[in-house]
Amino acid sequence: MLNKPVITLTTDFGLQDPFAGIMKGVILGIHPDVKTVDITHNIQRHNITEASRVIGMSYESFPLMTIHIVVVDPGVGSQRRPILVITGDHFFIGPDNGVFSTVYEKEHVDSIKVIHLTSTEYFLPVRGSTFHGRDIFAPVAAWLAKGTDPVAFGIPIADYTNIEITKPVVSDNLITGEIASIDVFGNCISNIKTADLEKLAPGETGNSFNIQLSLNQPDLVKCYSDNKSSALSSVINSFGQLEFFIFKGSAAEKYNITVGDSVTVTLE
Amino acid sequence: MLNKPVITLTTDFGLQDPFAGIMKGVILGIHPDVKTVDITHNIQRHNITEASRVIGMSYESFPLMTIHIVVVDPGVGSQRRPILVITGDHFFIGPDNGVFSTVYEKEHVDSIKVIHLTSTEYFLPVRGSTFHGRDIFAPVAAWLAKGTDPVAFGIPIADYTNIEITKPVVSDNLITGEIASIDVFGNCISNIKTADLEKLAPGETGNSFNIQLSLNQPDLVKCYSDNKSSALSSVINSFGQLEFFIFKGSAAEKYNITVGDSVTVTLE
Amino acid sequence: MLNKPVITLTTDFGLQDPFAGIMKGVILGIHPDVKTVDITHNIQRHNITEASRVIGMSYESFPLMTIHIVVVDPGVGSQRRPILVITGDHFFIGPDNGVFSTVYEKEHVDSIKVIHLTSTEYFLPVRGSTFHGRDIFAPVAAWLAKGTDPVAFGIPIADYTNIEITKPVVSDNLITGEIASIDVFGNCISNIKTADLEKLAPGETGNSFNIQLSLNQPDLVKCYSDNKSSALSSVINSFGQLEFFIFKGSAAEKYNITVGDSVTVTLE
Repeated sequence: MLNKPVITLTTDFGLQDPFAGIMKGVILGIHPDVKTVDITHNIQRHNITEASRVIGMSYESFPLMTIHIVVVDPGVGSQRRPILVITGDHFFIGPDNGVFSTVYEKEHVDSIKVIHLTSTEYFLPVRGSTFHGRDIFAPVAAWLAKGTDPVAFGIPIADYTNIEITKPVVSDNLITGEIASIDVFGNCISNIKTADLEKLAPGETGNSFNIQLSLNQPDLVKCYSDNKSSALSSVINSFGQLEFFIFKGSAAEKYNITVGDSVTVTLE
Repeated sequence: MLNKPVITLTTDFGLQDPFAGIMKGVILGIHPDVKTVDITHNIQRHNITEASRVIGMSYESFPLMTIHIVVVDPGVGSQRRPILVITGDHFFIGPDNGVFSTVYEKEHVDSIKVIHLTSTEYFLPVRGSTFHGRDIFAPVAAWLAKGTDPVAFGIPIADYTNIEITKPVVSDNLITGEIASIDVFGNCISNIKTADLEKLAPGETGNSFNIQLSLNQPDLVKCYSDNKSSALSSVINSFGQLEFFIFKGSAAEKYNITVGDSVTVTLE
Repeated sequence: MLNKPVITLTTDFGLQDPFAGIMKGVILGIHPDVKTVDITHNIQRHNITEASRVIGMSYESFPLMTIHIVVVDPGVGSQRRPILVITGDHFFIGPDNGVFSTVYEKEHVDSIKVIHLTSTEYFLPVRGSTFHGRDIFAPVAAWLAKGTDPVAFGIPIADYTNIEITKPVVSDNLITGEIASIDVFGNCISNIKTADLEKLAPGETGNSFNIQLSLNQPDLVKCYSDNKSSALSSVINSFGQLEFFIFKGSAAEKYNITVGDSVTVTLE
């Protein structure tokens, strides 16, 4: 049995319908000591890439051996496989549609085991074809938390689905990336990371970089309040990503920035 | 004392105001071992029928002896009675305005006991007239979780309020139902259930039915991805209901479907 | 170690991004026995006054020794100080930007201790400049819950930031206040409290007061359903505040009421 088990939920269910609550009910019915934590239920409908990005930026903040359920699952009820991903430090449960691609990218491929969930004795006995969150993922997570040996849940597979998460191109004097997401504050987060800047210019500080987002050339500052004007600025955010913002405002709205917009970094 | 007590919350409070959090604070102040689970706080304002439908589709997924608080309560502070409903397997606490009608319908009438909550010693000592969730329902739920004998909370009543939840009419060769709700995906859920289809044609499969929703005659398929066109389809969802959808889109929006729209099923 | 520790979260993060979930992950990684409770994550962006109002109306409903984290923090990463506020009954953790002003107002100034959080050994080892909720507030709260002596977290300060929360003016025969907030039902809550009415007319009941909100002169009734017409009415709500409503409707919308609108009370 896992000591003090934690199960997280990341879905596109929204918060109007009772689906997330129902999954917690199923979990507590199997293992009443589990703590459940909502990561978000507001993934854009059916957006597997966004779900992958969100679980990828979140899971390492959780205790070792946390079980992460992700349900963004347009293929529910079809032949797409339900899977359990084991990294050694964390567990992931959801559909095999690429939703765990950021995990595959972050972890060593040798340390990853993926199991096709086929042992129906760990599912709910009566199952529908539209809500595997309730019927398969929640009960398997609870049985795993309760100490069931992961190999009991099914068959190891190697051909699990990996979707491409767009990465920046880094050359000797140029990084070419793009806006990957926009948060609720209107901050625009690029796919360029600290490590990319470090490759371009090891040990360099913000002043050394020319940053361009569409037609704008924002400064790179240390924190949001370093530029209290309403001009577009950039910052290395707390996930190590190059992020664009305006202080107390929405950069996305004011500068008409959308996901996919090009971002380049060169040296002064 | 209940072992590993769980208390669920279903309200129309929304998630902007602190009302749901405050109820959890009151509960934990009385019984710190309770696990609280949000079913939803986004019931449409004052919509008792929707609240009843949501708790009715959710409660059976929770552990036995779970305590379900429902607060959709336009009559708060008036003479409407606060009640505790006991079914043998679950407890329900809320206003006596019909919000538990789906529970009354699902459970045998003989197994239902309803208690008018009159023992003010289990309420908060200082009470207002606008927030019985905090002042009455939360503390009674916590005391119940702590092991207080249900009969101590008040007086058994038989004249509790039961509102009519519209049911389909099933004849020899026709089911006449309606759209009962629309989920956040835009899927349109009818009040026609597996049992109704079974009555019309015992043992028949999807191909045997002519389904009509307004002017549309959607196919009945096994799972969402069985029809990846943008045509309206239907499926038996995981709550045993006949549901209308389009794959990765909003059926409600595209086909202009609203709650109350007529649905009929005949045999081929 | 605190017995049965509870940590609440009040932020302007919204529920789309994973920020609130990540904070809970950090907390559980340090102290797995903590129960976390969301008060709200939908504080209006950067609205310190609203955050202060919300925590002020909520914290007393929680068990003694609850730890309340509030993150509405436009100055994150700058010189603004992270603080721990100790009242004897509750703990508060967040930025020193005035967000705890309602707590300072409610508690005796002698009973309040404020500590500037400077002991980085209780922070996450790798910290960014945009998410102190994850890097500072969550881990300090968890270590506090685990029993760390509050004085270990930093240096006592006396010059903490206190913002003015607008209060009504009460004279012999007149109270002049204003609308302080509007809830999701469209109810309009003034800053006039029971104690103010009591000062104007000790022991008087609703009929004794002339209440005016803009051009309207609503009655003061006992509970919402006491006036089922669509006319504007007022009620003393469950937080002891004079509140304006229409039964089953939005007073704000129908009567075009906004925060800051003038409210007066005189004697008949």
